[in-house]
Amino acid sequence: MPKNKQIHLDNRPVGEAVASNFKLVVSDTPALQDGEVLVRHQFLSLDPYMRGRMNDGKSYAQPQPLGQTMIGGTVGEVIDSRNVKFSAGDKVVGMGGWQEYSVVDGDQVGALRKVDTSHVPLSAYLGAVGMPGVTAWYGLVKIIAPKVGETMVVSAATGAVGSAFAALSKARGCRTVGIAGGPEKCRYAVEELGFDACVDYKLHPDAVSLSKALKEACPAGIDGYFENVGGMVLDAVLSRMNAFGRIAVCGMIAGYNGKPVPLTYPALILMNRLKIEGFIVSEHMEVWPEALKELGTLVATGALRARESVAQGIEAAPEAFLGLLKGKNFGKQLVKLHG
Amino acid sequence: MPKNKQIHLDNRPVGEAVASNFKLVVSDTPALQDGEVLVRHQFLSLDPYMRGRMNDGKSYAQPQPLGQTMIGGTVGEVIDSRNVKFSAGDKVVGMGGWQEYSVVDGDQVGALRKVDTSHVPLSAYLGAVGMPGVTAWYGLVKIIAPKVGETMVVSAATGAVGSAFAALSKARGCRTVGIAGGPEKCRYAVEELGFDACVDYKLHPDAVSLSKALKEACPAGIDGYFENVGGMVLDAVLSRMNAFGRIAVCGMIAGYNGKPVPLTYPALILMNRLKIEGFIVSEHMEVWPEALKELGTLVATGALRARESVAQGIEAAPEAFLGLLKGKNFGKQLVKLHG
Repeated sequence: MPKNKQIHLDNRPVGEAVASNFKLVVSDTPALQDGEVLVRHQFLSLDPYMRGRMNDGKSYAQPQPLGQTMIGGTVGEVIDSRNVKFSAGDKVVGMGGWQEYSVVDGDQVGALRKVDTSHVPLSAYLGAVGMPGVTAWYGLVKIIAPKVGETMVVSAATGAVGSAFAALSKARGCRTVGIAGGPEKCRYAVEELGFDACVDYKLHPDAVSLSKALKEACPAGIDGYFENVGGMVLDAVLSRMNAFGRIAVCGMIAGYNGKPVPLTYPALILMNRLKIEGFIVSEHMEVWPEALKELGTLVATGALRARESVAQGIEAAPEAFLGLLKGKNFGKQLVKLHG
Repeated sequence: MPKNKQIHLDNRPVGEAVASNFKLVVSDTPALQDGEVLVRHQFLSLDPYMRGRMNDGKSYAQPQPLGQTMIGGTVGEVIDSRNVKFSAGDKVVGMGGWQEYSVVDGDQVGALRKVDTSHVPLSAYLGAVGMPGVTAWYGLVKIIAPKVGETMVVSAATGAVGSAFAALSKARGCRTVGIAGGPEKCRYAVEELGFDACVDYKLHPDAVSLSKALKEACPAGIDGYFENVGGMVLDAVLSRMNAFGRIAVCGMIAGYNGKPVPLTYPALILMNRLKIEGFIVSEHMEVWPEALKELGTLVATGALRARESVAQGIEAAPEAFLGLLKGKNFGKQLVKLHG
């Protein structure tokens, strides 16, 4: 059996997460028991939700245990199987964690899913046709419920969720505006991802300034907002929401590290009769088949071409993850573990 | 025709509203035209929403014009009519404004409604069986949608909305907890209004302290919250919301005067997958008949006995209104205009 490099959570962050919270461990891959499958990971997905798991306190999910392999989505290839449902060579999606190999109980419902790579690249099952894509779908379709001609806005626009959001929103006939950091990301959002406009939040020192830029990009106001970041961006968007606007809250990166970031003017919720709803996509498994079908079609037809940011080797995972929390990634953040 | 004392909005508040924003004006009551009705007001309703109308900026409703009679709900008696639908002696509810008499076009839909005072006192049509009651009903039934055994919380618990909320929530089998200011109001909430417990926010210097008191009053957490005040109270309640909790936002008194009051920890919306929705009851006229029917029954059977705070004479309206904004009223704030 191959040697397996893993990244464990060694200690919990005090304030900002740092590289020394993680620890590289090399172990032997255990021999397979009946029903088990050995997966050789090709890609690991890095996602903001992992930061929440690193805390011990009350959060929206179970904390990541100390001294164990970090949780994370993976795609890879079955290289050994003692389960009739899986054979060597199968391409699979699972929650293999921050490691090069995983041993999975192939009979556990939802633990391992075979995927078709004839029209969709394997890595896309961690992004556009995976959890981030379904996240965008749920927030847009189930919470925001857009109408043709409305204006939709998403923050972290060039990330995996934002990219999928753009394709889904354009497919519904909405003006679709992104918020991203830097001219390169904003240009990419418009030229490659199909956004009608993209606002560079880094050009704006405060919410008032960003709000003015949003007014230009959204001349008819904002009807739906998909929230990935929180903080100043949320304040600015709130000031431009139309009456009866809907906000799907999926991420608040600005609040994960250290102290909570306040929302400046909550009375706008009343003034504009807004609906704001937080959600976690893994609690809505019933929508996955419908969402994945639409997302798979968008990818296969080229309507959704999401960019990837790929770190090389498991050792690079912690730095890539810390960069993701600071918005340094450009597109879906992956770690390549095997060719 | 009788002389008519009116309160006009003379100038707009800069920061906190003050008595000199208002001006007493005495005018003649105009002669009735065909279709018009002359109403002698018995009570004027004072409500927090009026503060929002005093501003000129973007708010959730049209600003109150300067130099005109302040908007407001009234109940009274028809004393003269040139409309076949109304006769002298009819008891009516309308939006007569801050004045002793009003001349109303009896044909305008919704302008004037005849009411039955055989089981429900006339003033109740401004409170429990009027706009505040329907407000409580809409927030509880349509936004929070409580389940038997859940815990419901309302701020400004002894006000007109809070009183109705308690009766409606108890009728649905929920633990019902109020938040009010001072021991007298809290005792009244439990002994007279049917709350299971009431937390005195004035005993708590900050949201952390108030949150601890809420934990005692709500040992199973909070599933539904009806927001009337904002500020520290909202922060404290948010910290005790259960997963999938719902918050109906009806008022943010703390934000009307002067500067916006921030919400400290918006990431809780995500962590607990909360739904927060602002509403204005006048935009949901379709629910009024159903709501008024339930509220009328609760009042007629004695299950809802809301307290009133009655100021005497139109001259007393500005001070009573400013007191309401500071929580000085105890129960539904009315102004008695005629016996």
